[in-house]
Amino acid sequence: MTNIGTKIYSGKAKDIYSTNNEYEVIVKFRDDITAGDGERKDNFQGKGKYNSLISSKLFEILEESNINTQYIKLIENCSILSKNLKMIPLEVICRNIATGSLLKKFPFEKAQKLKVPIIQMDYKNDEYHDPMLNDDIAIALKIATQDELNQIRTITLKINKILSEFLKEKGILLVDFKLEFGKDLKENIVLGDEISPDTCRFWNIETLKTLDKDSFRQGQNQNEVMSIYQQVCTMIVDENDLKKWKI
Amino acid sequence: MTNIGTKIYSGKAKDIYSTNNEYEVIVKFRDDITAGDGERKDNFQGKGKYNSLISSKLFEILEESNINTQYIKLIENCSILSKNLKMIPLEVICRNIATGSLLKKFPFEKAQKLKVPIIQMDYKNDEYHDPMLNDDIAIALKIATQDELNQIRTITLKINKILSEFLKEKGILLVDFKLEFGKDLKENIVLGDEISPDTCRFWNIETLKTLDKDSFRQGQNQNEVMSIYQQVCTMIVDENDLKKWKI
Ligand SMILES: Nc1ncnc2c1ncn2[C@@H]1O[C@H](COP(=O)(O)OP(=O)(O)O)[C@@H](O)[C@H]1O
Ligand SMILES: Nc1ncnc2c1ncn2[C@@H]1O[C@H](COP(=O)(O)OP(=O)(O)O)[C@@H](O)[C@H]1O
Ligand SMILES: [Mg+2]
Ligand SMILES: [Mg+2]
Repeated sequence: MTNIGTKIYSGKAKDIYSTNNEYEVIVKFRDDITAGDGERKDNFQGKGKYNSLISSKLFEILEESNINTQYIKLIENCSILSKNLKMIPLEVICRNIATGSLLKKFPFEKAQKLKVPIIQMDYKNDEYHDPMLNDDIAIALKIATQDELNQIRTITLKINKILSEFLKEKGILLVDFKLEFGKDLKENIVLGDEISPDTCRFWNIETLKTLDKDSFRQGQNQNEVMSIYQQVCTMIVDENDLKKWKI
Repeated sequence: MTNIGTKIYSGKAKDIYSTNNEYEVIVKFRDDITAGDGERKDNFQGKGKYNSLISSKLFEILEESNINTQYIKLIENCSILSKNLKMIPLEVICRNIATGSLLKKFPFEKAQKLKVPIIQMDYKNDEYHDPMLNDDIAIALKIATQDELNQIRTITLKINKILSEFLKEKGILLVDFKLEFGKDLKENIVLGDEISPDTCRFWNIETLKTLDKDSFRQGQNQNEVMSIYQQVCTMIVDENDLKKWKI
């Protein structure tokens, strides 16, 4: 039995709790939603539940394909029992279609399909506003070694393949997503954090309609945004789990 | 005999002229000086002469070490006869010491000596304000292939070694510098543009005093800035050339 311990970190959308096992933490998804480098904030009831269920399902899919993730199990509505990781301060972004900040910074065509996925690594650092890195700079800042960066790149491309295929079957186009990795006690690189409409761009594969946090960024209201998150949940989570968690 | 043809490009500090040989152009250094993404502009008499002499000397040093450069010869005060290159729109920056924009964007210590040089590639694109690239983005934008990026990186590190050693003997610390490469008709990667106090950070190796365009950026006046450029010229250019070009 896992006992929830003290809150050891509180971020923009999740809290991390210690447990009675030093190798494990509880990742608790809150209902807080933010956008624009933390400028806009709101609290949408249900978001934590949807994101924890979506993340759990996607972590399970990855584990089945032998990706090493933090996921142990969903222990309650909103809370995932996870491996305790020493996080690497990188936002590892993988893009299949050019949209969002990529269009602002570089001359890509809007919604241009990329022949090869683009991986971009941003430095997770609020004070410096998450600047984009290159390998030389990441290494000089001691964020990761060249070998670790290469590993992260290889794992991210694998994850992109696995999730793109899985989501396609569910009617969702995986446009881009952001991952965070950490190291376990044996210094293995392990996928942490979350994979949800907060951290991915999901488009309806037929209509190309936004099925993610872009709905909030674009100004849709609480009902609209939460009905989108619920929709993604029902599209990908197993029926018995939806019943169990009353979705 | 090379005949100067028509002006085919006029940039912020240099003009490019065609010649009667389609494989060659004349790179003519003007006295214009700019800073801050083109925000500040001035015209300092003598700058073109100093920069063309300094660039010529540094290109000669590189050619002696078998680096393929545009340099053919200094044909007059301010004008370098050069190979006609199809330029690659990259600003290839190599840093030995952390200063300038690197400090603004990332948490390096001021004037921190870098254990290994950092190479950074910015997209030479005024409209997008020269954003920093990574390899994936450069390739997706068709700026260069992976092989070309690797070649450029290798050549840049060689150039850094050669110039750092040469300048050290002359009492100058090579802090960082920006290169531009192009392709000749056989698609060989060739070093183009200029290597001067406009495009390098030079520090006096004893006093660490600025010997480059940072003097202008920091607000020193025409006399002060030009005396610094003249100083670099006399420190590195051969005595008979200084006499010949009346420095
Ligand atoms: N398995 C894990 N072990 C320890 N820390 C984790 C793990 N997974 C994620 N984290 C960290 O916990 C925080 C999650 O909360 P979040 O609200 O996303 O924070 P932030 O605002 O910093 O992104 C992040 O800082 C993330 O790096
Ligand atoms: N050998 C060459 N052949 C053709 N073009 C060159 C060569 N060397 C440099 N150039 C280009 O000529 C221009 C030099 O002028 P400059 O004033 O530096 O322009 P800019 O404001 O575009 O930097 C640059 O655009 C540079 O890329
Ligand atoms: Mg987060
Ligand atoms: Mg230039």
